[in-house]
Amino acid sequence: MRLLHPVKRSCGQLIARGFCLIILACFLTMNLHAADPLPSWNDGPAKQAILKFVAAVTDENGKHFVKPSERIATFDNDGTLWVEKPMYTQVVFAADRVKTLAAKHPEWKNTAPYQAVIEEGAKGLLKSGKQGLMEILAATHSDITDTQFKQIVADWLATHKHPRFHRLYTELVYQPQLEVLAYLRANGFKTFIVSGGGIDFMRPWTERVYGIPPEQVVGSSILTEYQVKDGKPVIMRLPKINFIDDKAGKPVGISRHIGRRPILAFGNSDGDLEMVEYTTAGDGLRLGLYVHHTDAVREYAYDRNSLVGKFDKALDLAPKRGWIVVDMKREWKQIFPAKN
Amino acid sequence: MRLLHPVKRSCGQLIARGFCLIILACFLTMNLHAADPLPSWNDGPAKQAILKFVAAVTDENGKHFVKPSERIATFDNDGTLWVEKPMYTQVVFAADRVKTLAAKHPEWKNTAPYQAVIEEGAKGLLKSGKQGLMEILAATHSDITDTQFKQIVADWLATHKHPRFHRLYTELVYQPQLEVLAYLRANGFKTFIVSGGGIDFMRPWTERVYGIPPEQVVGSSILTEYQVKDGKPVIMRLPKINFIDDKAGKPVGISRHIGRRPILAFGNSDGDLEMVEYTTAGDGLRLGLYVHHTDAVREYAYDRNSLVGKFDKALDLAPKRGWIVVDMKREWKQIFPAKN
Repeated sequence: MRLLHPVKRSCGQLIARGFCLIILACFLTMNLHAADPLPSWNDGPAKQAILKFVAAVTDENGKHFVKPSERIATFDNDGTLWVEKPMYTQVVFAADRVKTLAAKHPEWKNTAPYQAVIEEGAKGLLKSGKQGLMEILAATHSDITDTQFKQIVADWLATHKHPRFHRLYTELVYQPQLEVLAYLRANGFKTFIVSGGGIDFMRPWTERVYGIPPEQVVGSSILTEYQVKDGKPVIMRLPKINFIDDKAGKPVGISRHIGRRPILAFGNSDGDLEMVEYTTAGDGLRLGLYVHHTDAVREYAYDRNSLVGKFDKALDLAPKRGWIVVDMKREWKQIFPAKN
Repeated sequence: MRLLHPVKRSCGQLIARGFCLIILACFLTMNLHAADPLPSWNDGPAKQAILKFVAAVTDENGKHFVKPSERIATFDNDGTLWVEKPMYTQVVFAADRVKTLAAKHPEWKNTAPYQAVIEEGAKGLLKSGKQGLMEILAATHSDITDTQFKQIVADWLATHKHPRFHRLYTELVYQPQLEVLAYLRANGFKTFIVSGGGIDFMRPWTERVYGIPPEQVVGSSILTEYQVKDGKPVIMRLPKINFIDDKAGKPVGISRHIGRRPILAFGNSDGDLEMVEYTTAGDGLRLGLYVHHTDAVREYAYDRNSLVGKFDKALDLAPKRGWIVVDMKREWKQIFPAKN
């Protein structure tokens, strides 16, 4: 008995110590959970609206509860998740593609809309209007397989930097928005991109950068065709626009790809008006938000008169419809993630 | 000390008992995990192929390891996940819609292809050929919102029964396939439907029946348009086919919706050939499978000469390409889930 007792006691003590550690771990975890999920947001109206909305739809006993499968959140990309000034990244990419492909197309030197791009780059491309832009996107984004295109995009993004910030475009994503995406997912939401940009221009990097997998990216597309080339099945990209996921195209893209009406939508321009309108018109609690670019020092200040990311009609409608307008300058503590 | 000792001991005993219970629970859980994940499959070549494939791609130390995000599995629906005989369910539904809508269209009584459907039902519809079928699908699936259409589908499926089995169509899903879907998901796969059927004909029930959410359903679609009707934003269905997700359309649908090449594809007919070919031609370990309907007693026996689910070219190619052909009669212990 004298031999057994100390053993028993030390066993009990070990077990008790183990339990203490477990309880300590629980407390630490609880503290982590209690930590601010949106540290790059100042404590303004937008942050409060987001926190309040998420608390309401996840409260099982509340009247606004939404079951996890219906917690769909859609985000525009250009100007909402990453920088779109001085020019949409994909337009810069397309202008570069024109220059790369010009060697194979000597006629482009004297033909609109290519000539303007060869001479003035992305600026010339944007000047050529929607029709010219569509023609150039179709010409420069096709005649290759989907795999080849994604590789070209990935290579370009890995080497080209923003003219003002001198960082890779994929580093010029908004830190506060990365936090919103992660916060929503931690609360059972599925996060989607719904962008006017090319679906396959985004897919090579959205998972790594935003945590959004390719199948949760909705965007504009060109026609593709299944072909067996040299015995290898491939998806060939054809020089014809299939779908434009902008303005009234956004709710169509959402219905087609996602098949459910979102309960939260985040945009930054008139191109997102229909998406936000469609989202917030659903039954139950809904949240519509717009980033308002008001910070010329840390990023850019633009709205009604900008060719890129024009924010005019939606800016007027926002207060009437209860949409939240995020004043970037006041509400975002930090714009971009810290440099590595 | 005499007072303290018994207390200490009983505390220790309680804690020890708690630990025993935890260990017991662990063992039970392990046993559950070790239980056969495919109990409705006989121990034949198909079951072995599935188990071996999943073990290989999930083995972190093996040369065939595939990270979870790339574990995409695509399944055809008609004849692969649910019964398609004597007629595709959606064709029966469309024939019923013709009859319902005929009151508003008195001219249909004397006009092809409607006349044949009014007189002979679904059989008349299938006889009217692809062109007639497309016309009727466009006419009967449009001029309503996407929400209204989904409700009509849900109501129809809740009340119409299969002519031979006298059960709801959504109960005539294959129990062995439900097990494969669950087994794949338990091993980190994302499961998708890629069907020639209408995307919005499937979405109202795939989550409940297969555990596949709307956004993981790829299918044929008609054009839709965003409209604000009486101040309410809606998605209107237009009487025009947008995309046919069959044959060479399946890899296109996969590329467009999913954005990644699957590593496993399961079909049952020549309509799935390109999907299976595209899937299995990717790098690394891949698995292509076909259900072969060989069981006239418990379900149906058909292949090369069937109008519905014709399985001819793919049946010839399967042994050459290493695709697994599942002999329903031999390999499936049970066809449908037990009745409630």
